[in-house]
Amino acid sequence: METPQNPADEAAAESTAETAPTGIAASDWAEASADPRYRAAVVDLLGALAYGELAAFERLAEDAKLAPGISDKAALARMASAEFQHFEQLTGRLRQIDEDPTEAMAPFAAPLDEFHRLTAPSDWLEGLVKAYVGDAIAADFYREVASRLDSDTRALVLRALDDSGHASFAVEKVRAAIEAEPRVGGRLALWARRLMGEALSQAQRVVADRDALSTMLVGGVADGFDLAEIGRMFSRITEAHTKRMAALGLSA
Amino acid sequence: METPQNPADEAAAESTAETAPTGIAASDWAEASADPRYRAAVVDLLGALAYGELAAFERLAEDAKLAPGISDKAALARMASAEFQHFEQLTGRLRQIDEDPTEAMAPFAAPLDEFHRLTAPSDWLEGLVKAYVGDAIAADFYREVASRLDSDTRALVLRALDDSGHASFAVEKVRAAIEAEPRVGGRLALWARRLMGEALSQAQRVVADRDALSTMLVGGVADGFDLAEIGRMFSRITEAHTKRMAALGLSA
Repeated sequence: METPQNPADEAAAESTAETAPTGIAASDWAEASADPRYRAAVVDLLGALAYGELAAFERLAEDAKLAPGISDKAALARMASAEFQHFEQLTGRLRQIDEDPTEAMAPFAAPLDEFHRLTAPSDWLEGLVKAYVGDAIAADFYREVASRLDSDTRALVLRALDDSGHASFAVEKVRAAIEAEPRVGGRLALWARRLMGEALSQAQRVVADRDALSTMLVGGVADGFDLAEIGRMFSRITEAHTKRMAALGLSA
Repeated sequence: METPQNPADEAAAESTAETAPTGIAASDWAEASADPRYRAAVVDLLGALAYGELAAFERLAEDAKLAPGISDKAALARMASAEFQHFEQLTGRLRQIDEDPTEAMAPFAAPLDEFHRLTAPSDWLEGLVKAYVGDAIAADFYREVASRLDSDTRALVLRALDDSGHASFAVEKVRAAIEAEPRVGGRLALWARRLMGEALSQAQRVVADRDALSTMLVGGVADGFDLAEIGRMFSRITEAHTKRMAALGLSA
């Protein structure tokens, strides 16, 4: 699993050059958390990721009901179960640093629930696209954020990333459905665009509400808050999404 | 985790004395599966257990939505995720013995789906009682059946059993709710009775449909089918359920 610091990954290195790791990436948790703003930002981040995993678990399990057969149902249940394992790791880490997971998650429950409420799939294919898109965007975000973290928190985040990619089974199914009935492609392309739009809109809500987290996301507390850089991070993630959709046969 | 063969567990030993392990319990899979009737029975059993775990996963994840808070939601999601791990072990075993898991599960989808359809909890407490009752009945059944299996299949079944008991968190919550409002106890007692009734009715449907499985459940293929012994197994499980409900403050 490559992180943006990997010199072999030129595109990634280029795109994150302006947000190259500050001193924090060279510190471990004990050192970095001495700064209360950094500590608050990491608690926010772990809380947001943990609630994100719990909400994803819930929705994937729900979407599994739309599966046309037992093995499709099992594939979605497998993803849901993997999200729950991440939830356990993230909340376990919060407890380890003496934070209450429920309190850390609370600020993120409303935006994440709202995202899922607004993007409930109406059929199995929409559910597959959502599972795939959600998994990929989460992986992009984990990768973006990893380089800005102390070594201990980074290891935790990368472990969750390493274990993602359960959604790849969706690609084959969606491609086959579009091949069988090309009109389906138009509908699913619209759907994928809506998913990304709602995700960005909820993410912006979080950014506006959570200063410490937002500041850390764009390059460490030392550098202060930079809304333009948040914008650039969102557009890198959107760009990657657009490329993936094209590969799937869905022009974005 | 005690199995009925444990001499320390006198009550269990007594209750299963008449169904003491036949020669099969002393064989491993390679030896026992030479008998095609035994092989068919085990494929049925693994298929039934696997679909049971998948359906339980789905319903627990669904019921997690009724949770009043994040930590309650997480507790139910944890149970769901554990059920899915069992599903993976059971279907993995089916593949290992060259059986198609989907085909093996198919005969049991209708009765299990029907059970869950007829027992959808209407609130969080009903969900908790169902999670607890379901977990305990499954453990009783796994324990009953384990002694009738070849050593390899038995190890698999006992591994799943060892890992159950996630529902114990439910006991405390249900007790507290009844203490706070005793009337709740009457309603939940009725609910628990209905759960057991529906479970038995679907189980009897399976027994009637699946000769090889039913025969094995009551003492191995060599001894032939014995409806009275099936009845005794059901009443042992019902009795254990009644005792648990009483301990929970729910007179059955």
